[in-house]
Amino acid sequence: MLIVQKYGGTSVGTLERIKEVAKRVARTKEEGKDVVVVVSAMSGETNKLTQMAHSLSKNPKRREMDLLLSSGERVTSALLAILLTEMGHETIAMSGRQAGIITDSVHTKARIDHIDKSYIENELKKGLIVVVAGFQGITEIGEVSTLGRGGSDLSAVAIAGALNANVCEIYTDVDGVYTTDPRIEPKAKKLDKISYDEMLELASLGAKVLQTRSVELAKKLNVNLVTRSSFNDNEGTYILNEEDIMEKPLVSGIAIDKNQARITLRGVSDKPGIAAEIFRKLADEGVNVDMIIQNVGVDGATNLGFTIPENELDITKKAMEEINASQSLEYDKNVVKVSVVGVGMKSHSGVACTAFDTLADENINIEMISTSEIKVSMIINEKYGELAVRALHDAYKLDK
Amino acid sequence: MLIVQKYGGTSVGTLERIKEVAKRVARTKEEGKDVVVVVSAMSGETNKLTQMAHSLSKNPKRREMDLLLSSGERVTSALLAILLTEMGHETIAMSGRQAGIITDSVHTKARIDHIDKSYIENELKKGLIVVVAGFQGITEIGEVSTLGRGGSDLSAVAIAGALNANVCEIYTDVDGVYTTDPRIEPKAKKLDKISYDEMLELASLGAKVLQTRSVELAKKLNVNLVTRSSFNDNEGTYILNEEDIMEKPLVSGIAIDKNQARITLRGVSDKPGIAAEIFRKLADEGVNVDMIIQNVGVDGATNLGFTIPENELDITKKAMEEINASQSLEYDKNVVKVSVVGVGMKSHSGVACTAFDTLADENINIEMISTSEIKVSMIINEKYGELAVRALHDAYKLDK
Repeated sequence: MLIVQKYGGTSVGTLERIKEVAKRVARTKEEGKDVVVVVSAMSGETNKLTQMAHSLSKNPKRREMDLLLSSGERVTSALLAILLTEMGHETIAMSGRQAGIITDSVHTKARIDHIDKSYIENELKKGLIVVVAGFQGITEIGEVSTLGRGGSDLSAVAIAGALNANVCEIYTDVDGVYTTDPRIEPKAKKLDKISYDEMLELASLGAKVLQTRSVELAKKLNVNLVTRSSFNDNEGTYILNEEDIMEKPLVSGIAIDKNQARITLRGVSDKPGIAAEIFRKLADEGVNVDMIIQNVGVDGATNLGFTIPENELDITKKAMEEINASQSLEYDKNVVKVSVVGVGMKSHSGVACTAFDTLADENINIEMISTSEIKVSMIINEKYGELAVRALHDAYKLDK
Repeated sequence: MLIVQKYGGTSVGTLERIKEVAKRVARTKEEGKDVVVVVSAMSGETNKLTQMAHSLSKNPKRREMDLLLSSGERVTSALLAILLTEMGHETIAMSGRQAGIITDSVHTKARIDHIDKSYIENELKKGLIVVVAGFQGITEIGEVSTLGRGGSDLSAVAIAGALNANVCEIYTDVDGVYTTDPRIEPKAKKLDKISYDEMLELASLGAKVLQTRSVELAKKLNVNLVTRSSFNDNEGTYILNEEDIMEKPLVSGIAIDKNQARITLRGVSDKPGIAAEIFRKLADEGVNVDMIIQNVGVDGATNLGFTIPENELDITKKAMEEINASQSLEYDKNVVKVSVVGVGMKSHSGVACTAFDTLADENINIEMISTSEIKVSMIINEKYGELAVRALHDAYKLDK
């Protein structure tokens, strides 16, 4: 039985925390399992290095950023391997290169191309615990690369997939996936199981437990994920194929994403190709456009509405200037996106109506709506965000 | 014209210091020279990492120590390359691996086996500044290795040798090599030139500017060294072949080494092989025995005296216990070694006599003496150490 365990920055944030991690790894090994551990940099390290680089250059060279940023995980992996060896468990630390993680050449946000699993397998065969520095790999020509935000999760999932591990455990400082953010709704409950697709929606909607990319990769490679806390022994949340979840709840969770801004372009010419030009330009600038609403036009002109991450507002305004669409641009930063997510929606109607009714009962105006098979998202005024979350959590009886 | 510049930990100790280093590198490049820069970790980083590892394990796994410790220089090299690029000078940062530095497999104190110079040369040909992470390389099987104390100096000298650089500039926080430690004798003068052999003696006798290994390697590879300060523009000290120094001073400097302990074994059996057994045991334990004095024996027994580094006293006592020589062991930690160094001694007699006379005039008792072609070393009581240095500095008119 092979377990891949991934420990995030807060889980290895101090030497004391690293000792707790080592105990858990040792316990797993002592249960007779093979263990591959993937570690992040100690919390704060990557930010510290990034800030140093940005204080020297507004646009630091990406190849060199990767050499810089990859050092944090190397430190943690070496420290953990040293400690496990001291505890009597033969352990080898591996950089991304040594673990055979090959990526494309897009420095600072590389994608894993493949894993040469022989390096890790050889050490597992010898009975060693393998500790891999997460977040990093090498390109085909041997340059150091890093995987961007949530990169260590990606490393862990990719390794679990390549080695056909029984489970990939993602350790963070929270117990698992909750029906909603417990800081907003104290009655929020931890979910035992959730499907990849629901997790994907929740992740892209602001749930911080797992990054979208890791869930996508887990789904693609059919890796069983568990997110757990490294600070206690509570059972976490399993993230599985929908088919492996017997009882599908109508609604699994309520998500809130505060990093939202709504843009309105008034009087956009209602001719084919105009909207395409606008969104192509935004895509070229790397702006992540989310919801789009275009009303039927009046007198050959229409209003085009869309949402973007709030921190991409400046690039958006600049991009619209460049294509002469800025004179009609209005924006509103005081909005949030509240979403209801659940695979059960596929087979049940009325879920969306309940959401709209609930917000209407609270006198909350819905500015935009977007739906998919398994979610309903609504843009509302920021000041009602938390109230909406609590009301929806109640309406779907998620505390039961 | 190719210049290799090496910047030590204090020279790159803060972002402000790194900016000063970048200015100097840029200036050199703008003068039309090719530049390879070798950097140490920011001061304090390597100690911090070492302490972390030692808090987790008394005897940390050496392979993992190398993965750990090599991260500090990677950080500095990336930061400096990012800054130089920002300043408009195309620059590439290289880890030890990327710079082609191949070592033996003795982790944490590897020796450079050879340098595959094509990696650095290719970048220089393109007109780039090359910044290499010092102190590190890889073994034949691709494991990360580090070179031990003074390792970045070694990297710089080896690279300068492999590339046939015109000069290898070693930047630290001192101006160069002085006739003696200016904190002891304020009249100490900076030397313009010194031979490899003199520098070797001074380095091994406690002058902190350069490690013995780097000077040995520079001598072997015929690399012209300069030690300079990165904090000012003063000319440094050239370290050259003796033949390249026209006017050879009788005495170049006075060194003092306070990390000394004197051991006396009383009543050692005066038979062949006894001394050999003692010193073989000490060599096996890694104790660096320096001076040895054995008197003619009386009644088949003799007293054996030798000096060791003070911090190796405990291992020495333990080693002597193991071969049953400890019952007659006496030691004195309150001794220092004061040495007079100069290539001119080779052709002039009387240098040693002047030293003995000088100490006698000060009523300082000389406990042990050892001489070589270019130095006279004397063990004296610690409390007279600084007085002896000043008196000898005066006697040889080194302030003139």
